[in-house]
Amino acid sequence: MNIQIQNKINHPASKKVTVFSTLRDACSEDWAAYINHKFVQQLGDGSLPKKCFQHYLIQLYLFSKHYSRAYALAVFKSEHLDDLREAASHVDLQLNYEMALHVDYCAQWGIDMDQLDSWQESDANRLYTRYVLDQGMTGDLLDLLIALTPCSLGYAEIGSELLSDPATKITGNPYRAWIELHGGHEFQEGAQTMSQFVDRVAERRGISINDSTNKRWRSLKENFRTATQMESRFWEMGLHPPTL
Amino acid sequence: MNIQIQNKINHPASKKVTVFSTLRDACSEDWAAYINHKFVQQLGDGSLPKKCFQHYLIQLYLFSKHYSRAYALAVFKSEHLDDLREAASHVDLQLNYEMALHVDYCAQWGIDMDQLDSWQESDANRLYTRYVLDQGMTGDLLDLLIALTPCSLGYAEIGSELLSDPATKITGNPYRAWIELHGGHEFQEGAQTMSQFVDRVAERRGISINDSTNKRWRSLKENFRTATQMESRFWEMGLHPPTL
Amino acid sequence: MNIQIQNKINHPASKKVTVFSTLRDACSEDWAAYINHKFVQQLGDGSLPKKCFQHYLIQLYLFSKHYSRAYALAVFKSEHLDDLREAASHVDLQLNYEMALHVDYCAQWGIDMDQLDSWQESDANRLYTRYVLDQGMTGDLLDLLIALTPCSLGYAEIGSELLSDPATKITGNPYRAWIELHGGHEFQEGAQTMSQFVDRVAERRGISINDSTNKRWRSLKENFRTATQMESRFWEMGLHPPTL
Amino acid sequence: MNIQIQNKINHPASKKVTVFSTLRDACSEDWAAYINHKFVQQLGDGSLPKKCFQHYLIQLYLFSKHYSRAYALAVFKSEHLDDLREAASHVDLQLNYEMALHVDYCAQWGIDMDQLDSWQESDANRLYTRYVLDQGMTGDLLDLLIALTPCSLGYAEIGSELLSDPATKITGNPYRAWIELHGGHEFQEGAQTMSQFVDRVAERRGISINDSTNKRWRSLKENFRTATQMESRFWEMGLHPPTL
Repeated sequence: MNIQIQNKINHPASKKVTVFSTLRDACSEDWAAYINHKFVQQLGDGSLPKKCFQHYLIQLYLFSKHYSRAYALAVFKSEHLDDLREAASHVDLQLNYEMALHVDYCAQWGIDMDQLDSWQESDANRLYTRYVLDQGMTGDLLDLLIALTPCSLGYAEIGSELLSDPATKITGNPYRAWIELHGGHEFQEGAQTMSQFVDRVAERRGISINDSTNKRWRSLKENFRTATQMESRFWEMGLHPPTL
Repeated sequence: MNIQIQNKINHPASKKVTVFSTLRDACSEDWAAYINHKFVQQLGDGSLPKKCFQHYLIQLYLFSKHYSRAYALAVFKSEHLDDLREAASHVDLQLNYEMALHVDYCAQWGIDMDQLDSWQESDANRLYTRYVLDQGMTGDLLDLLIALTPCSLGYAEIGSELLSDPATKITGNPYRAWIELHGGHEFQEGAQTMSQFVDRVAERRGISINDSTNKRWRSLKENFRTATQMESRFWEMGLHPPTL
Repeated sequence: MNIQIQNKINHPASKKVTVFSTLRDACSEDWAAYINHKFVQQLGDGSLPKKCFQHYLIQLYLFSKHYSRAYALAVFKSEHLDDLREAASHVDLQLNYEMALHVDYCAQWGIDMDQLDSWQESDANRLYTRYVLDQGMTGDLLDLLIALTPCSLGYAEIGSELLSDPATKITGNPYRAWIELHGGHEFQEGAQTMSQFVDRVAERRGISINDSTNKRWRSLKENFRTATQMESRFWEMGLHPPTL
Repeated sequence: MNIQIQNKINHPASKKVTVFSTLRDACSEDWAAYINHKFVQQLGDGSLPKKCFQHYLIQLYLFSKHYSRAYALAVFKSEHLDDLREAASHVDLQLNYEMALHVDYCAQWGIDMDQLDSWQESDANRLYTRYVLDQGMTGDLLDLLIALTPCSLGYAEIGSELLSDPATKITGNPYRAWIELHGGHEFQEGAQTMSQFVDRVAERRGISINDSTNKRWRSLKENFRTATQMESRFWEMGLHPPTL
């Protein structure tokens, strides 16, 4: 079995056409720049400087507050019980479970909570979260979710790609835990659930993957592209930690 | 020239298919109940008790604060310059021009500002404006505008219908000014501009009047129907002034 | 030990001065009308007609969707991690735990999910939730939380009062489970946590219970009073089920 | 008469203690860095490179869309008629009057509308407007207005300072129109009205300039400081036009 085929099997998002896969294909260059960013490559081969990863971890912590606010906004904007519940579980999971894990993980990398709370959001960080929140307030639930997909579904794709890529170093890679978390079964399942959430909301809002003539695709693509570019800039920020 | 033909000429909204006319036709029973409400009929033949009209005027004043907030929300939710400008002109017009006219008109009916500020919003009033505002926050610009159309476009249709209806009493009707305002050229033009605004936003949001299969029509109709029913309840409230 | 003293012991909210207790005392008549409403009395002595309670349960289910949206808005509007987490736990608890319990409880009262989803929000219901959501959007986190307290803290007080009132019938009372739930330890603790949440946010927003001269107390009281009156109307609605 | 005294006379904002002057004094270093930015100095002596000013003008045009949305949000968040009207007049003024003037002014500097609409918001631009909008959604009307003051009141102070500064070159300065607009009577009056608007809202929200112990001052100062720093970065951006 060659690596191409194995990749398809390991990569759930590529299995069928979804709103996410449609947007990803429509913005393939921006997507590739994000998914295969130098930061990701250096995570994969373990060459990423420690201070870059630490900077990334701190910014991700600051990011998660506003990311949670965005999912809370998704609850607020939900009209159907399944959407309310789906979004609500994200909000609680992030704030009352994953954030604690993240703080623990930061501790393993020598970052303590005092440091976490004393750092400022970087521009790349602030630009992305406030963009997502503004999309959510300006538009509807679909606009909000699309702005979130490059993060929630992109990380799953990156994890999956890294795990299935023979160039990835696992043994002795200081970033092994990061790779195995995001490539792992639980994270992949979460991504599929999110993708289905997006598809369900899209359908109710009149967007069908079988109808490419709908004029709203234009703004959805623009939204997806902008959010994807902002994710790339988040990686870029990671490569440039502030000198202390 | 028979009255049917005259009606068509005087009634711009009926001339062509718009998002508004599509929704109106889809909710024709609810629409008819609103447009031909007993309150409207009594405006037309001049038989409406004075205290009912006074109650209506007071509630309309209280209504206009939140109605203006809804148009302000439309500015906030606009992404294109033409939409921003269109909505902005409504906000200023209502708060800094029409409200003063309304206060003057109330004075002619023996209602002074002290009274205006001491009255409470009636349930029917509060239910409608808060519904519109919640639609606007939950959904996108189109959802917000659709919730507003039964008011902005319905009043124009009522005015036009009353003016062209031979049963309407003009001379000696104490409500003549109301009828002539809402049936008049300026108000009809404003309604056409609003209808075009809705059509433009709908198109950008992927809703075409030529594609009835779009699943979002369902929620748009539900929204339009709810707002229309709330307008009927506003008339109903007018018929039942509080006893003092 | 007389019942007065026992009442004080059982009634945690009365133990010390809080923002909630200050507002409750400032609106004591409206508060008493809500807490001692005929609906509550009939819960206590078991005389409430079954169809009234069923109507109430159905409306409470419809209420809980928008109540959860209000807590989601509290997450969105939180700037501090403790507030984010506190509000987030409410959102998930309500949507992914309590709602299921409520549906089970409804089933015990002969109401199935099909019925739940086919009922319309009553006016009293819709007026209250949309009021809370509009307060939250118009004001800050404190305005939002104050509009929620008559529900979250009032139900705890009602449960506690009923449990400690010798006139309350426990054995054989069909509403025993309701009384024991809301008067029980877990619910009382939840109310105390909510009260502390309100106090913490109030302090950050410049409201101190030791400074009664702050001009913002006026709008906070108005807000609390309106929300309390809307809770009374919710009970009133319960006493008047629609005839089918 | 020395220049110090003349300055006081020409500078209305300094005449009495306001919420704005209190915040400005509390953030005096950040404020000075903004008011006396190199970009401002080069406007004053006419040495600013043309391409810097053109870049600034284009970004200001893009800025004004979201700045208008922020004032629309102020309408939405207003509870009192005077606030509704004050904010509404800003929205309409900006979108339907000042924007046209700005487009004309851009034309004089060789920038046409096609260029205006093809440019992207710079980071410094986007960071500021989205910050203001997020403050407005997270907080109350006062939080929103405070985030706007460094722009609306700062530009008036800069204009006034430049006009009264003997180092300013008027005759032959290509930026003379800019200086005379912002230092002129109409703009100064507009700033005073805005400052009074802030004071009125602050008072209703429980903030008194005579009570420095109110804990909310802390977040108001933080807000003001952040917005002021973002204004400095807007100038900084102006100094670094993209190479084409």
